[in-house]
Amino acid sequence: MSTDRAHRPSAVHPTDDLARAIDDLPLVDHHVHGAIDHDLTCRQFEELITESDRPIPSWMTQFDSQVGFAILRHCAPLLDLAPHTDPETYLARRAELGATEVNRRLLEASGIGHFLIETGYRGDEILDPAGMAQASGSPADEVVRLEAVAEQVVAAGTDAAGFADRFAAALWERSRTARGLKTIVAYRHGLDFDPRPPTPTEVADAAGRWLRAVESTGRIRVDDPVLLRHLIWTGIDRGLPLQFHIGYGDPDVDLRRGDPLLLRGLIERAEPSGVPLLLLHCYPFHRNAGFLAQVYPNVYFDVGLGVNYTGARSVAVVAESLELAPFAKILFSSDAWGPAELHHLGAVLWRRAMTRVLGGFVADGEWSQAQAVCVATMIGVENARRVYRLGEGT
Amino acid sequence: MSTDRAHRPSAVHPTDDLARAIDDLPLVDHHVHGAIDHDLTCRQFEELITESDRPIPSWMTQFDSQVGFAILRHCAPLLDLAPHTDPETYLARRAELGATEVNRRLLEASGIGHFLIETGYRGDEILDPAGMAQASGSPADEVVRLEAVAEQVVAAGTDAAGFADRFAAALWERSRTARGLKTIVAYRHGLDFDPRPPTPTEVADAAGRWLRAVESTGRIRVDDPVLLRHLIWTGIDRGLPLQFHIGYGDPDVDLRRGDPLLLRGLIERAEPSGVPLLLLHCYPFHRNAGFLAQVYPNVYFDVGLGVNYTGARSVAVVAESLELAPFAKILFSSDAWGPAELHHLGAVLWRRAMTRVLGGFVADGEWSQAQAVCVATMIGVENARRVYRLGEGT
Amino acid sequence: MSTDRAHRPSAVHPTDDLARAIDDLPLVDHHVHGAIDHDLTCRQFEELITESDRPIPSWMTQFDSQVGFAILRHCAPLLDLAPHTDPETYLARRAELGATEVNRRLLEASGIGHFLIETGYRGDEILDPAGMAQASGSPADEVVRLEAVAEQVVAAGTDAAGFADRFAAALWERSRTARGLKTIVAYRHGLDFDPRPPTPTEVADAAGRWLRAVESTGRIRVDDPVLLRHLIWTGIDRGLPLQFHIGYGDPDVDLRRGDPLLLRGLIERAEPSGVPLLLLHCYPFHRNAGFLAQVYPNVYFDVGLGVNYTGARSVAVVAESLELAPFAKILFSSDAWGPAELHHLGAVLWRRAMTRVLGGFVADGEWSQAQAVCVATMIGVENARRVYRLGEGT
Repeated sequence: MSTDRAHRPSAVHPTDDLARAIDDLPLVDHHVHGAIDHDLTCRQFEELITESDRPIPSWMTQFDSQVGFAILRHCAPLLDLAPHTDPETYLARRAELGATEVNRRLLEASGIGHFLIETGYRGDEILDPAGMAQASGSPADEVVRLEAVAEQVVAAGTDAAGFADRFAAALWERSRTARGLKTIVAYRHGLDFDPRPPTPTEVADAAGRWLRAVESTGRIRVDDPVLLRHLIWTGIDRGLPLQFHIGYGDPDVDLRRGDPLLLRGLIERAEPSGVPLLLLHCYPFHRNAGFLAQVYPNVYFDVGLGVNYTGARSVAVVAESLELAPFAKILFSSDAWGPAELHHLGAVLWRRAMTRVLGGFVADGEWSQAQAVCVATMIGVENARRVYRLGEGT
Repeated sequence: MSTDRAHRPSAVHPTDDLARAIDDLPLVDHHVHGAIDHDLTCRQFEELITESDRPIPSWMTQFDSQVGFAILRHCAPLLDLAPHTDPETYLARRAELGATEVNRRLLEASGIGHFLIETGYRGDEILDPAGMAQASGSPADEVVRLEAVAEQVVAAGTDAAGFADRFAAALWERSRTARGLKTIVAYRHGLDFDPRPPTPTEVADAAGRWLRAVESTGRIRVDDPVLLRHLIWTGIDRGLPLQFHIGYGDPDVDLRRGDPLLLRGLIERAEPSGVPLLLLHCYPFHRNAGFLAQVYPNVYFDVGLGVNYTGARSVAVVAESLELAPFAKILFSSDAWGPAELHHLGAVLWRRAMTRVLGGFVADGEWSQAQAVCVATMIGVENARRVYRLGEGT
Repeated sequence: MSTDRAHRPSAVHPTDDLARAIDDLPLVDHHVHGAIDHDLTCRQFEELITESDRPIPSWMTQFDSQVGFAILRHCAPLLDLAPHTDPETYLARRAELGATEVNRRLLEASGIGHFLIETGYRGDEILDPAGMAQASGSPADEVVRLEAVAEQVVAAGTDAAGFADRFAAALWERSRTARGLKTIVAYRHGLDFDPRPPTPTEVADAAGRWLRAVESTGRIRVDDPVLLRHLIWTGIDRGLPLQFHIGYGDPDVDLRRGDPLLLRGLIERAEPSGVPLLLLHCYPFHRNAGFLAQVYPNVYFDVGLGVNYTGARSVAVVAESLELAPFAKILFSSDAWGPAELHHLGAVLWRRAMTRVLGGFVADGEWSQAQAVCVATMIGVENARRVYRLGEGT
């Protein structure tokens, strides 16, 4: 729907007006990763359109899924193919055009006006913020992952007693121009952690345990809850908006421990700091996130990743996100990583879902057309610009 | 939709017939609080249309929410304004008319036929049952909050050993003409309490702890789980229908501990008493409540508060409440407190949601029109009249 | 909709084509029980169309429910009555025709092409697989319940030390021609069990405790978590697809402990075995099941029982099941037990729901018609044929 907006005849039907207004929004994708800028084999591509990290069984294809069907529907036309083409044709055409051209087409057509790029996950395999800005033609700022900074501090060498100071210094340095921070405590431990800041002694002790584990295993991975809490509280002290992975993700996550209601204690303790806490994805707990966003001024949320992976059903997921939360507390993200199809779909599916859901409210006589445009603009653009201060220098 | 029912031309379309039948139901609002009978500032009004108890941030208004949009849509016409007016115009007109006239218009237009008023929360700031009956022109009976009675017993003076007897006596006296009881154990502790009745010794010990805490803090608030269990079991002995706050509410509630499935042990222990247990609101756990209402004869539920606060999305919430539960086990409530807009919306949104959901079943050929009217009448009127014995004297 | 398929004129509207294609699918009902082949009193019939095991209160009828309305809508025409007839007329006509004729009509009209019959629950009161094949005209294979086999081993006589060997031998013998196994650990303990296989000593000790309990109570019922874990791991060793009761069921289930996310540890430990794990019903946790089915290759699920009991709302439940899971990981079942109305409804409601949901995706331009037919065929037929190897000998 965003492929030929320049040549679209002016709409006369009110719903068309709403669709066009939403289609034209210069979205802020407030949580996204870089696109892959090299060609992918069919197998590699399939492995990148699922949150599973397991080999794909021989008796199935990942294209037989909501996200797969959505790619064939919405991305194929941008590669000059008919919608609903078959996977083989799609991947052959993709290879023919090459990654650079595919990325250019998909990113530009997404209509994203600003990317906030989280660089902490396999950042060397994907475009960095500068690369994304170049490939898309839109500005791209950085969101820094707390756990990645901590692991870099250990990789660079520290002793246990010095860890806290070195981490704080590294975080300040790494986030000098960043727009936000991110934590994956949901993956590394679960959201059921003690919400209190640990004491300096506890941190030093935990750092010592970690350094000894690194020494014996050769692997640098922070998963000690004391350290994870310390990273979060240092992040809150840093004062930038803080993103939390919540809910659905890869099988590393124990989804039972990914319910945002588990963050209640931390939310209340962090409230005086004024730091915005942004709950990402949240599926299937997005209604719980909406509750938190209503009752706590410092809580925001999105349904990012859940939109791409529910495809034709993303209308329902977006609708469910529009219940308890004030509209000033909801944001848009794609959480795309790798294939630019995911960046494109994040925007296309959100625009279509918002058009259908808000258009339904208008058609039912519950909302005015002007209210619908206003809310879409808040969620798609304005809330993120306000929270991340995108109009201001860093 | 309920503003001009007297002058509506007779409908010919089946869906219009269903809408009219639902519109004409003299609803029993089985859990509601009084309306505020004095004028409100803009700030006060905004603070009363959210479950948040925090100051409203300067960068947002509570009108930018589902409940806010629903007020501007459905209440503005009753104040002689166009639907979807702006908040400033709405509040100015509200001030111009004055609280008494606003209450009269909104309450009458709600078409509520009977109010069951829970008086235990800041009851001195709102109309009491007699005041509500006068303002609305419909009968209003009382539902007594167990925790409020216990706190009144302590305020009046008791020793620990005498607490249980005094509470029982006070409850019997306070509920002489009441139609039901209510507990907010979800707020004061969580639903994850030991379902057994505590022993007299346990109660006396807990009362002693409470009295000492009252003495040292000057604050009278019952939150000891032993005492809360004792209030509940004394309430079950009293024999009136017993309401439970469940799920969504203000930030005092730890929503993780508000899942009605946590009440399984109590439900089974209370089953021989024959006392109806009424699970209120239940959002986002209303499907769990529907399960309990199917398998346990003594369990009923509603989606009260969740209807008002999801506004245009209340259609989905009501639809989800019509799954597992037999239709004899579902009730209507608004849980309104304060602005009469909330009393009005509770009725309007429920009527619209039921019309759309049941009308959809009829249009799809799944239900007959007669079945739809019958079910709406059961849920809106008859079930509450049977459970609370509204046709009988107290 | 499936009653007169032979005489239906060829459709021209695309949605009619989809409806017809789905209507014609020879469904594999991969988890179902036998039909009752004797006449039922009105009271007996009502008690069989709810998961409640309590007496029906005098002030209600189980026909006033989604499943009740669905019976009157979809089964009445097969008994030569108008749709939406009243319960009395329906039950009188049912009695007039007799159970054999009613079963023949309802089972044949269901269009089920293959039944996988779980025989472990009150199997002597219902038709066995051979009886079901005869009554329906379709092949019927068996699924063996682990707990029933263990209880038969104890009933036949064993000592504690010999239990493990005897159970393994009995399971191999009982499942010689079976297509799958089933566990009801959700009912007997909850899904929150230690996922590790118990040691032989632990099993022998637990068997000893069980035998002593049988001796003292005279009741043979396995509910010890060590033994239940042992049954499950022996089942995994057996190598047949293993079904788990999940979520909604009768009040024996503590629904809090029926969330499939609790199985994460077992799923990961069982992954190397290659044994398919099939999560049954899952309501209201079906989105959690969809997550597991996406990220773990060995996990499949259905929304069986939840479809029948949500009736007109089963469209929503089926829609919610079509989100995260790859389409190769979703199956169809009815979980019917007793009245053949439940077998029939399972198929009819699923066909109608799939037609509406997938037809909606096609109408919205999100899916092609061909994709919709393909996915319905996978879920209704092909996935089960592949998982249970229905084309191959046992």
